[in-house]
Amino acid sequence: MTMDRKKLRWNGWGWTNGPDVLGAHADAVWAWIGRTVGVDPLPHTPAPGLDDTALPPGRFDDDLLARLGEIVGPEQVKTDPYERAFHARGKGYMDMLHLRTGRIDAAPDAVVYPQTAEECLALVRFAAENQLAVIPFGGGSSVVGGVTALTRPGQRGVLTIDMTLMDQVIAIDEESLVARVQAGIYGPQLEEALQARGFTLGHYPQSFEFSTLGGWIAPRGAGHQSNKYGKAEEWLVEATLATPGGLWCTQGFPGSAAGPQFRDLVAGSEGALGVITEAVVKLHRVPEVKDYRGYLFMDFAAAVAATRELMQRDVPTAMIRLSDPDETYFYAALKTATEGGTPPLRPVSDRAAEPTEGLPPSISIMLVGLEGERAEVEHALAQCRGIIEQHGGVHMGEELGQTWYKGRFETPYLRDPMLDRGLGVDTLETCTRWSNLVRLHEAVTRAIHDAMAAWEEGKCGMRNAECGLSNAECGTSPLPEGEGQGEGSNPKSEIRNLKSPPPRGICMAHISHCYRDGASLYFTFVFPRDPRDPMAQWWAIKRAASNAILANGGTISHHHGVGTDHREWYEAEIGPAGLETLRAAKRALDPEGILNPGKLLP
Amino acid sequence: MTMDRKKLRWNGWGWTNGPDVLGAHADAVWAWIGRTVGVDPLPHTPAPGLDDTALPPGRFDDDLLARLGEIVGPEQVKTDPYERAFHARGKGYMDMLHLRTGRIDAAPDAVVYPQTAEECLALVRFAAENQLAVIPFGGGSSVVGGVTALTRPGQRGVLTIDMTLMDQVIAIDEESLVARVQAGIYGPQLEEALQARGFTLGHYPQSFEFSTLGGWIAPRGAGHQSNKYGKAEEWLVEATLATPGGLWCTQGFPGSAAGPQFRDLVAGSEGALGVITEAVVKLHRVPEVKDYRGYLFMDFAAAVAATRELMQRDVPTAMIRLSDPDETYFYAALKTATEGGTPPLRPVSDRAAEPTEGLPPSISIMLVGLEGERAEVEHALAQCRGIIEQHGGVHMGEELGQTWYKGRFETPYLRDPMLDRGLGVDTLETCTRWSNLVRLHEAVTRAIHDAMAAWEEGKCGMRNAECGLSNAECGTSPLPEGEGQGEGSNPKSEIRNLKSPPPRGICMAHISHCYRDGASLYFTFVFPRDPRDPMAQWWAIKRAASNAILANGGTISHHHGVGTDHREWYEAEIGPAGLETLRAAKRALDPEGILNPGKLLP
Repeated sequence: MTMDRKKLRWNGWGWTNGPDVLGAHADAVWAWIGRTVGVDPLPHTPAPGLDDTALPPGRFDDDLLARLGEIVGPEQVKTDPYERAFHARGKGYMDMLHLRTGRIDAAPDAVVYPQTAEECLALVRFAAENQLAVIPFGGGSSVVGGVTALTRPGQRGVLTIDMTLMDQVIAIDEESLVARVQAGIYGPQLEEALQARGFTLGHYPQSFEFSTLGGWIAPRGAGHQSNKYGKAEEWLVEATLATPGGLWCTQGFPGSAAGPQFRDLVAGSEGALGVITEAVVKLHRVPEVKDYRGYLFMDFAAAVAATRELMQRDVPTAMIRLSDPDETYFYAALKTATEGGTPPLRPVSDRAAEPTEGLPPSISIMLVGLEGERAEVEHALAQCRGIIEQHGGVHMGEELGQTWYKGRFETPYLRDPMLDRGLGVDTLETCTRWSNLVRLHEAVTRAIHDAMAAWEEGKCGMRNAECGLSNAECGTSPLPEGEGQGEGSNPKSEIRNLKSPPPRGICMAHISHCYRDGASLYFTFVFPRDPRDPMAQWWAIKRAASNAILANGGTISHHHGVGTDHREWYEAEIGPAGLETLRAAKRALDPEGILNPGKLLP
Repeated sequence: MTMDRKKLRWNGWGWTNGPDVLGAHADAVWAWIGRTVGVDPLPHTPAPGLDDTALPPGRFDDDLLARLGEIVGPEQVKTDPYERAFHARGKGYMDMLHLRTGRIDAAPDAVVYPQTAEECLALVRFAAENQLAVIPFGGGSSVVGGVTALTRPGQRGVLTIDMTLMDQVIAIDEESLVARVQAGIYGPQLEEALQARGFTLGHYPQSFEFSTLGGWIAPRGAGHQSNKYGKAEEWLVEATLATPGGLWCTQGFPGSAAGPQFRDLVAGSEGALGVITEAVVKLHRVPEVKDYRGYLFMDFAAAVAATRELMQRDVPTAMIRLSDPDETYFYAALKTATEGGTPPLRPVSDRAAEPTEGLPPSISIMLVGLEGERAEVEHALAQCRGIIEQHGGVHMGEELGQTWYKGRFETPYLRDPMLDRGLGVDTLETCTRWSNLVRLHEAVTRAIHDAMAAWEEGKCGMRNAECGLSNAECGTSPLPEGEGQGEGSNPKSEIRNLKSPPPRGICMAHISHCYRDGASLYFTFVFPRDPRDPMAQWWAIKRAASNAILANGGTISHHHGVGTDHREWYEAEIGPAGLETLRAAKRALDPEGILNPGKLLP
């Protein structure tokens, strides 16, 4: 592992000395955000340090720890507070809330660092024999609870297998453009090794610097340039898993009719079927040219139509990133504020009725990235510009695209200072067919706004019948049946129309991963954190958004995965036959149920 | 169903009055083939008619048949000899051998034609309650035993569910370019319905006219133009299956991180997990231009390198079809013979040592098909010609490509007259990475040649240790250990070098489905059928080829599937963990084991 973990934030994003995203005018930015969410000034809510945070007592006795040491070497068995806290949870908003309470409820009892697939196998077998929960851990950047240190009833404790010492590119087949790579390699180290030979995997998720190959495969991750390089399930050729029954290497043929391909079961297995120890992945040659530029649309629906046509006419883009009007406004305003200007306030809750000061209501920015040989990029650029102009898009040049490209890994650094200022912020994502995209976008946007506003009003915005929680669990008062269905309600999309909630939250979205048949939608929402019960507040918003996704034809996740947070909707999405089939596969591969309990499956 | 089944050959390929492929000079063609395989003149071995063929007695009593009639309507329950014979087997060489014996060992006890998914579900449930084997049947064009009327021990008989009355395009989502279609639709009817609206699935396997949508999905089929339109598992968006537990509709999102996608389990399930009743599939717009043309290479390895570069530089081809020197010779000679000329004989068994009369030893024809918008096809054509010329390929114009395109569904009509003339002919296919392709091609070619020659010499060419059959089962004398490993043996590729076997068989191959990381290989072999035991002869050749595929890094099937014929190698290919996982899935979905017994899984 080339990464010095001690320089990472155990309870936040990235490097402890990460970039100062807001710069000299940070105060003005906070003032603008405070005005936008209706809390001015924002409060001071810093996180407790590790010294002020209680960990649960470790449950592994010295004998058990010694036996783990016999497998991986004693120096690769860690039980110190930093390791336990660092590995307790992932990097979602809910994780941050937990880590900021000063008391970590669930943490691994030991963290082990295997160096070979055989050591992984021995660990998994040891865990099965001793009823230990096994959490496979790469970068730990899951935002859906994918690495939470949970046990099933009867298990003696949690053994987290940190894969990051298994970080080697084993072999590159330059003729077939595939590489065999250990699963614990971090993004930058992988790309450095590949690019030294002229190749790239091209998988650059926002977590790129802090996530690993295995962590990309397990939840079917997507990089920014998935239009060209594919999601994890598309570039995955072959995987090796450590399961209690042995090391399992799936088929890895370019094409095959020999039954279902088990790599398709590994992508999305989230550590519940085995620990991914290595993988064969598809490579591309390092692109000669990377061309990123921006286009401006006065109408979001027209921009969606242009995106669709780019995909359906097979224009070879690496990325199309289309921000909705709210996101377009937010980043334009953020830029104004960080440059010392005073951005206009945008009435987010009633967007259609009231034109935004200074900006037309439906202005949308599209970024298009092209990567490849110069001649082919030039050809694709001409295609792009032609199609975009036909849909009313205006070419804005390369600056917008290059600015995004340079700062593309920095946005997550905004979250910690937001949390320090009494704000809540989270993201969620889905995917649907083109014919349903605008409708789903509207439904989820409305659901998030309504839930944020309803929480502020002391109601969660959901009727009892819609909500699985009891009133006590929920912490708010659900709407009585019948309320919230005013004249403006849209029965077709089942969106409720609350009467003018106050503008207390921001919700914005973009399309970022595109297909011939549809596209993903990625939502970001910001709201004043309720200090009385921030977790219930988050669940109320998350639940409303997830219900809206399921009710309106979206998948519960496009690339974040299921983890703990999406399990409820996942089971509804795949239905009883899917659930029973997956359970059967898990029983076959993990009869003791030790592998990543509580994620994907109960 | 628009197809009049009674006009189809129950024991052969296609229409009873199918095209006369050889034309006026057929006698000369047969004389040339006879000389090539060393049997001149070829014998007269016609197939017995249906009236001269015995069927096993039906095992379903009137009560059971009446109850089936209650589900689908009495007129949709068939037990007549034509229906039972037509549905007894698929269209492989082994199937033809069986159907030509005058005695059909295994045939369905009844054939039923459901018209709705609910009828399919009721049939599957009825079968589970009554211990009937269920064979889902589309066009019945499987060449790997995928529809053979088998039972498991304890089952009362075979109920074949013929899906061809479920042949409607249910809905087209023009915005998302997907269509929902019933699974029993034949290729021509599907394309007619789609093209009337301006769309195409683009899936044109050689069996196109006589195979169905469900039959393409079940074994992960591939059409000729899979480079553009994808294999079945790539264009499949969503599937609905009738299982004993109920109708199961998989997820159908353009992209999703919500666990493994179950459509990936349906593609390749071969009827063993459920009866596919309908599917959502990806569409393309009908291409403005179809450009098919030929290129000539003097060296097969150079042609392979050109194919690889076309794929890895993302040139958008619809098809690249590269014939090896043997196939290039065969089709050139066939053309000469059908035009009345006398083709030179090619010494197939010692190709490298002895230049072929009139043709350089390694001449290879590549056909490239481009489909799409005119401007994009022109751009791709320029890319193709540039890359091909860099590798020494010579542009031969459009005639070769157009001739292939016009006759692309006719070649299978050659098999029945070959069988009528004492010949055996079969095909098999595999896929591997580019770095292994030439080696695999050589190993399988050699294995097939050796097995054909060894059979003629009264030896199967395999040592006992290599062969799972006893001598009695095999019908030939395996080589003693140590024999057959002369000085010319190649330990690297584990190819044995039999000493100059007589030229008694033809073996030829082509690449036809290409990927960034590798390509498929499709072998055709022709040999004098051994009238004493043609089935053992076929198994000896098939076994040698399959062993060579597995030993040299190929998949046991690229698009034909597993069926009964590949089961032994399939289990070796996926290993114990894969097998146990698949079995667990089957137990979950088909606890009684009624679904397509003996295919894919034991």
